Amino acid sequence: MHAQSIEYETVAENATPDVSPVLYVLPSPSVDDPPAEPVRADASAPLLRPDDLGVTRGDGIFETINAVGGRPQALEAHLARLQRSAAMLELPAPALDMWRRAVQHAVAAHPPVPELLLKLVMTRGVEGSGRCSGWVVAFPNSDFSRERAEGIAVLTLDRGYPADVMTTAPWLLQGAKTLSYALNMAALRHVRALGADDAVFVSSDGQVLEGPNSTIVAKLGHRFVTPPNDLGILAGTSQARLFEWAQRRGMSAAYDRLTVDDLHRADTLWVCSSGRQAVPVRSLDGVPRTWDADLHAAALAHLLTA
Amino acid sequence: MHAQSIEYETVAENATPDVSPVLYVLPSPSVDDPPAEPVRADASAPLLRPDDLGVTRGDGIFETINAVGGRPQALEAHLARLQRSAAMLELPAPALDMWRRAVQHAVAAHPPVPELLLKLVMTRGVEGSGRCSGWVVAFPNSDFSRERAEGIAVLTLDRGYPADVMTTAPWLLQGAKTLSYALNMAALRHVRALGADDAVFVSSDGQVLEGPNSTIVAKLGHRFVTPPNDLGILAGTSQARLFEWAQRRGMSAAYDRLTVDDLHRADTLWVCSSGRQAVPVRSLDGVPRTWDADLHAAALAHLLTA
Repeated sequence: MHAQSIEYETVAENATPDVSPVLYVLPSPSVDDPPAEPVRADASAPLLRPDDLGVTRGDGIFETINAVGGRPQALEAHLARLQRSAAMLELPAPALDMWRRAVQHAVAAHPPVPELLLKLVMTRGVEGSGRCSGWVVAFPNSDFSRERAEGIAVLTLDRGYPADVMTTAPWLLQGAKTLSYALNMAALRHVRALGADDAVFVSSDGQVLEGPNSTIVAKLGHRFVTPPNDLGILAGTSQARLFEWAQRRGMSAAYDRLTVDDLHRADTLWVCSSGRQAVPVRSLDGVPRTWDADLHAAALAHLLTA
Repeated sequence: MHAQSIEYETVAENATPDVSPVLYVLPSPSVDDPPAEPVRADASAPLLRPDDLGVTRGDGIFETINAVGGRPQALEAHLARLQRSAAMLELPAPALDMWRRAVQHAVAAHPPVPELLLKLVMTRGVEGSGRCSGWVVAFPNSDFSRERAEGIAVLTLDRGYPADVMTTAPWLLQGAKTLSYALNMAALRHVRALGADDAVFVSSDGQVLEGPNSTIVAKLGHRFVTPPNDLGILAGTSQARLFEWAQRRGMSAAYDRLTVDDLHRADTLWVCSSGRQAVPVRSLDGVPRTWDADLHAAALAHLLTA
């Protein structure tokens, strides 16, 4: 019997080749588990059984956090969202103190890099075990300096659902950050095959939603606007930090419905995510756009403050 | 450093406790890989790295096959569907001969049981590796004799999408059997919390689609009907065998659109899947139903023929 025969040859796409990812496994990912400290493990070795529901059913949740200068950004907002996702999937509540500690251990164990991404994953665990699986992996963020400076090309894509789907059909899990991301990946492949960089989903009744892994923010006059979470979209953590910054500078920031026409009318349009923080949209559905370069530079500098 | 610290204590829900699942790993799951024979591995040991896209993104495909009396049913239909799912996800084409061999090895290695389930999983593999992961696990099927004899209670649920979503928005991957099944699991939890056994999804414009892990077949007069695949639903393998049987008995069988009213009007309504084969619906949205018991018994006997 050959113990493990899937061959692992290369490093993760996002990793700098000479730095190995740091992995911490949580023996106690949920409050149902007897407390036990997160344990370091080998990120290049097999971790999950083939009957873990995380892989057989995409049945689990995740968060991606950027640690800038060794400080995890919006950690509590990410943990709160992990908790909300767990509730929507009827998973046991995450043991937030254990997740916090695993993040801290992983940051401390990783060699210093300007931006360190932390991926938190909690699955429903091995089928029939009644115990969740959980781990945190830390690896250097990709270099997004070009996208942050020059902007990205975005295409709108139909998400297929009406704007009220979250309330009418909660079993569709809109608004939860689940491991079932195959369609988000397919949407990115689709727009990249058309020469664009990213997508923004629109509801079947014309409401702007979110990107496959991002939040959309439009600046219309002196007002920063992002679509409200009751459209079945994720509460953006980078978008929330952008809002705080804007409000501290005397600008207004609001959760409000947006149409694609509103996006075209915006002075500046951003795609926000933990990895990229905030990148300006330089074309939308093939229509070139400008943005307020000074404002963007100031906002980005704030977001990248440790 | 603790090598592997997720604790595994119990067996899979579907497994008979005293029979261990049989696992075969495919070193060559896709036609892009240099050919190599499937290799037996320990099903209770970790297999997947934490950065396998199968778990981090639910980015992969699967099939579940029932081997009755040691004979995998509809093997070629399942492999053809695996191939179609791979194409929809732009995965490399599965090396079907390797998958066929892994299935045969797993059946041969497992102690004889009346019904053996085979789960085939192919993921996009470790991020950045460019190589898919693939494996086959074999374990005894659950005992569905009660459901097959007494029927199940089914509730209709809105799938949120219109009937034409597969053609208007192919990035939503409707019609592919992906690992991103969190919403299917949530739909089952939803109906079970309401005291039912299973769900049938309906499009936002009133077309009957499929169950979270099943195909719906209605017998209306002498005609067996199931919804067409262009609604963005899976081609059912058990349903196809039921259709063949009906046609050989001189009845007609057709792919045609159905409304929930049509389901209520049906003489007999079945939920078909590899695990359950065909179970009659004994109530739909709380309305009790009857079924043709002789016909069902004959159909089920045929489906369970090796």
